[in-house]
Amino acid sequence: MNSPELSNDLRRTLPIGIFDSGVGGLTVYRALHNRLPNEHFVYLGDTARVPYGTKSLATVERYAIENSVFLASRGIKLLVVACNTASALALPKIRATIGLDVVGVIGPGARKAVAVSGPQPRIAVIATEATIQSDAYAASIRQACEAAEIIQLACPLFVPLAEENWTDEPETRSIAKRYLKRVVDFAPESLVMGCTHYPILRNVIQKTVGANVKLIDSGEACADEVAALLKEKGLENPREVEGKRRLCDDLDHFYVTDAADRFGRVAERFLGAKPAKLEAIELGEVDSRR
Amino acid sequence: MNSPELSNDLRRTLPIGIFDSGVGGLTVYRALHNRLPNEHFVYLGDTARVPYGTKSLATVERYAIENSVFLASRGIKLLVVACNTASALALPKIRATIGLDVVGVIGPGARKAVAVSGPQPRIAVIATEATIQSDAYAASIRQACEAAEIIQLACPLFVPLAEENWTDEPETRSIAKRYLKRVVDFAPESLVMGCTHYPILRNVIQKTVGANVKLIDSGEACADEVAALLKEKGLENPREVEGKRRLCDDLDHFYVTDAADRFGRVAERFLGAKPAKLEAIELGEVDSRR
Repeated sequence: MNSPELSNDLRRTLPIGIFDSGVGGLTVYRALHNRLPNEHFVYLGDTARVPYGTKSLATVERYAIENSVFLASRGIKLLVVACNTASALALPKIRATIGLDVVGVIGPGARKAVAVSGPQPRIAVIATEATIQSDAYAASIRQACEAAEIIQLACPLFVPLAEENWTDEPETRSIAKRYLKRVVDFAPESLVMGCTHYPILRNVIQKTVGANVKLIDSGEACADEVAALLKEKGLENPREVEGKRRLCDDLDHFYVTDAADRFGRVAERFLGAKPAKLEAIELGEVDSRR
Repeated sequence: MNSPELSNDLRRTLPIGIFDSGVGGLTVYRALHNRLPNEHFVYLGDTARVPYGTKSLATVERYAIENSVFLASRGIKLLVVACNTASALALPKIRATIGLDVVGVIGPGARKAVAVSGPQPRIAVIATEATIQSDAYAASIRQACEAAEIIQLACPLFVPLAEENWTDEPETRSIAKRYLKRVVDFAPESLVMGCTHYPILRNVIQKTVGANVKLIDSGEACADEVAALLKEKGLENPREVEGKRRLCDDLDHFYVTDAADRFGRVAERFLGAKPAKLEAIELGEVDSRR
């Protein structure tokens, strides 16, 4: 799908593709948008099939491939897998399917946690049950530094708390205290927010674990690696956007596989703006049955 | 799928089918099991495609039909739609597709709320965002009693709190107090728990709204109507089960469309027992792509 004849001059004007199982990846979009103001983005939220975290490996792989092929067919220069579950389970299959660079969120988050910690890093990871069970963050951290001491724990209520936008409610503080007690006891140097929703609760998480723990936003770490990769490959978009770009402006295109209204509402809660271009599409099984 | 030649003698020995989008319907299964100890059940949890509440009408209808056809093809005498979203959106299509009696949870819950209230009933309904937006409970209540005064509100955190099994944690009490403040102010005669997960939090909900508010479990109301319907049609199972039946024993068969392990774990939290017979199957789009 990525035509080999396409010149770099043309390729670098293409957008960056991002997919997520739903709305959570909008925090990754925000990180990319802030880090790379000259780039534009095509975002796909697979809202018809969210969540991926409770689904089997085969199912997640299949969905991830369908999402990737859809975005690649739109014409993109690089693919970001914003979904932690798909990053944990499906990167090899995606890379083997589409002829493009693919950046996930787990590797960048893990590497950044090691980079900001000492020579014998003590790292905590919080994520969904499925991401923790996959052990993908721990494996990536150990790959970056064998000596790392790691604890991992799931915080299932953080996702609905973020979607409720209860970012500083007493209940949120109390639940954070309960979930993160083991992190506080472990006294890590850095704490990886290994779920795309968690940066919405960044302040309460930081207050709970204390200011001396470095909070790693996997989306921001991913944006750093994407920036470096574009530079290395000469794929940075050369244009200068006139004026200041806003999140969700009409240079960025958003697709969802279902319930666009709800996506728009949550986008507004998460980003302070509704997508100017938001479109509902059909993917995978749906196509084959109509 | 329901052979018209089947004699009533044979039909009444068939199980009752139940489907839900996931694990929540287990509270409906429990209510049916307790109310009808001579019956056995085939339960389908569509865990590959949960949740339905954020999906569009067309998608929910399609999934509901696939689930119903699967259960009908197993040989059942009656179908219970335990999922509130599917009960709100898909009953007419299901009835038109399978030649069987179909009982949802919304009609029974609404009728019971009216029955236990006075001549000018004041009824509160709590449910997921999608069920509230569908207005299905309010419509059913008004159908049973035009004079009813109704408030409806969504309690999105109740589902993950139930799945965490935080049934009496201080955070749960505090969140319940916050969500249900409008219910307390409204001072209803009855409160419908219009989401299958909510009965898990029954005690904290009852404490929050006060002992004088009658709590309606839509699953229990559904079980009452199923019992009446079986009697009316002469379809009660004539056998006497030897000894006392347990929830999830080997007379009941459970199917899930994905992630059977997690289903078993949550079943244990909700019911105190893992299904003796639990099987993963493939439905709909999955079949057509392998």
